Amino acid sequence: MREFALIEHIRRRFGRTGPSVVRGIGDDAAVLTPPPGRQLVMTTDLLTEGVHFDRQTASLEEIGYKAAIANLSDLAAMGARPDYVLVSLACPSDCATPDILRLYRGMADACRPYRVALVGGDTSASRSGLFLSLTVTGSVPIGKALLRSGARPGDRLYVTGTLGDALAGLQVLGKKRRASSLRLSSAARRVLIERHRRPIAHPRLGQMLSGHRLASAAIDLSDGLSGDLRHLCEQSRVGVELDAAALPMSPALRAYARSSGTDPITLALQGGEDYELLFTVPPSKERVLLRMAQRTGRRLTRIGLIKPARFGRQIKDVTGRLRRLPNTSYEHFRSSGVK
Amino acid sequence: MREFALIEHIRRRFGRTGPSVVRGIGDDAAVLTPPPGRQLVMTTDLLTEGVHFDRQTASLEEIGYKAAIANLSDLAAMGARPDYVLVSLACPSDCATPDILRLYRGMADACRPYRVALVGGDTSASRSGLFLSLTVTGSVPIGKALLRSGARPGDRLYVTGTLGDALAGLQVLGKKRRASSLRLSSAARRVLIERHRRPIAHPRLGQMLSGHRLASAAIDLSDGLSGDLRHLCEQSRVGVELDAAALPMSPALRAYARSSGTDPITLALQGGEDYELLFTVPPSKERVLLRMAQRTGRRLTRIGLIKPARFGRQIKDVTGRLRRLPNTSYEHFRSSGVK
Repeated sequence: MREFALIEHIRRRFGRTGPSVVRGIGDDAAVLTPPPGRQLVMTTDLLTEGVHFDRQTASLEEIGYKAAIANLSDLAAMGARPDYVLVSLACPSDCATPDILRLYRGMADACRPYRVALVGGDTSASRSGLFLSLTVTGSVPIGKALLRSGARPGDRLYVTGTLGDALAGLQVLGKKRRASSLRLSSAARRVLIERHRRPIAHPRLGQMLSGHRLASAAIDLSDGLSGDLRHLCEQSRVGVELDAAALPMSPALRAYARSSGTDPITLALQGGEDYELLFTVPPSKERVLLRMAQRTGRRLTRIGLIKPARFGRQIKDVTGRLRRLPNTSYEHFRSSGVK
Repeated sequence: MREFALIEHIRRRFGRTGPSVVRGIGDDAAVLTPPPGRQLVMTTDLLTEGVHFDRQTASLEEIGYKAAIANLSDLAAMGARPDYVLVSLACPSDCATPDILRLYRGMADACRPYRVALVGGDTSASRSGLFLSLTVTGSVPIGKALLRSGARPGDRLYVTGTLGDALAGLQVLGKKRRASSLRLSSAARRVLIERHRRPIAHPRLGQMLSGHRLASAAIDLSDGLSGDLRHLCEQSRVGVELDAAALPMSPALRAYARSSGTDPITLALQGGEDYELLFTVPPSKERVLLRMAQRTGRRLTRIGLIKPARFGRQIKDVTGRLRRLPNTSYEHFRSSGVK
């Protein structure tokens, strides 16, 4: 019975209905009217305790928030408008109703700016850890989805925002716990921790890229630039020349790299969960893109050039020397002179 | 790397594409063309180790199969045609690649008769148990979804198939483990265990009920007749008179009840995971329904009558006496003379 009372509470508090939600939470399934002239886009992302998060260091609001962002970011990378979310949740016995509501509050916070409606889900007990799996569906004008496979030699490689901040934030939190003496201003700490705890997804930018056909391919940075760029290149069957000197980094990241003796390029290449968009732009579309970026105040940085497949994936370090881009996100990579 | 190789293997082995699957597994999200003139129906169902299944007694094929059936059955209860599935999977370290493929094989077995396409998912490590969450989407002609809320006083209550078999099958398995001497033919054992291990969902029947507007409301029996009937009545704001003597039971269930000294009515009311459809039919549609059942060889049984809400939920035992229908699936209920 508690389960049904909880579902009813969640429905009233977080469930949203609208003209297109014929039936939301509370039936065997949700019933939705698909927007005319659009294709459906669906993704699912899973967070498991001890692998993706630690309840000792992350609040339940944060966990819910980040689960939603991971999904919203996938839709952003397709150029899609997010519409609906379904929540699958397994709770251990030490998770009481207020805890579950905190998780939902975090998810709702992430979804609110995009008016994404919670339309259903499933809640169960867990004999062990907390598991949270979200499915987000959205839509895109027919034929305009941004695939990973559309990049062509000659296209420019762009990225939004700055790289590596979320990983640096995680490391700052870890160092704080170990009470080490990291010489970093509290403002810089705050910036990095906030980027780790409250990353931002970019569905509106994704929609601009798809709607105006500005991007030829896109992927979101969840595993790290190095790994995600590899996916994009493999699926497009192209190579890439990445420019280390161009990688956008926040002042906070540079300060952290200095004070911790870490290579900022390594952080930028390997840092996951930034949820920035990585995309390619045909030369003919570059001017329109930059005008759009200026008009909307978006930070977009050109970080490389798509090459034929035989070129492979290479990075030009700040001295101009080309090296193979490391294959995995964990391989150490160090460029000279940047630090 | 192993993760990506596994995803690629799953894509090639189990991924399906078709004219409406613009992009399946392998991008940030799936892209699908919605069928014209239809509404979307979406559900998610979650199985967690130690709560919904036990890897000591259930094979991984079985677990995958049942996860898919739970979702397909939800769509059946909406009168929807199932179209796509997304799989969210967290695997403990003792789960190797062949184990994961067994899970997928089970899901594929359940989906194959309905040509449901696997279009995406997320796979992660789990620090503790196995966790499997599926999202299935489908579609229904506009305005024809079978809701739980459409039952009206005077409607007839119907159920497909037979009740309680899955629960009896589970109990047979439990008793076998405890090596007790249950006097039951091996044929009856097989029938009941099969109903527990390989339940069947009824999306085609659901589509007939919605397509011809035969049912006014529907729900699938996942929690048990008693609990699921309660959901239907509450959401339709009606009461019900259930007829104990009419509850359809298999010969195997009756044999099991006799040999174990269990009340078969209790098994029929409380047994979950039968995945039969429970639905209400306006009197004017009853003749067409029965003709359809005859033509298709479907077993449909009228088990009660929808009453005004003030009547409450009552059950008429075999002596004709009315009693309140127990509220929870665990409350003991015993009718005289049936056993």
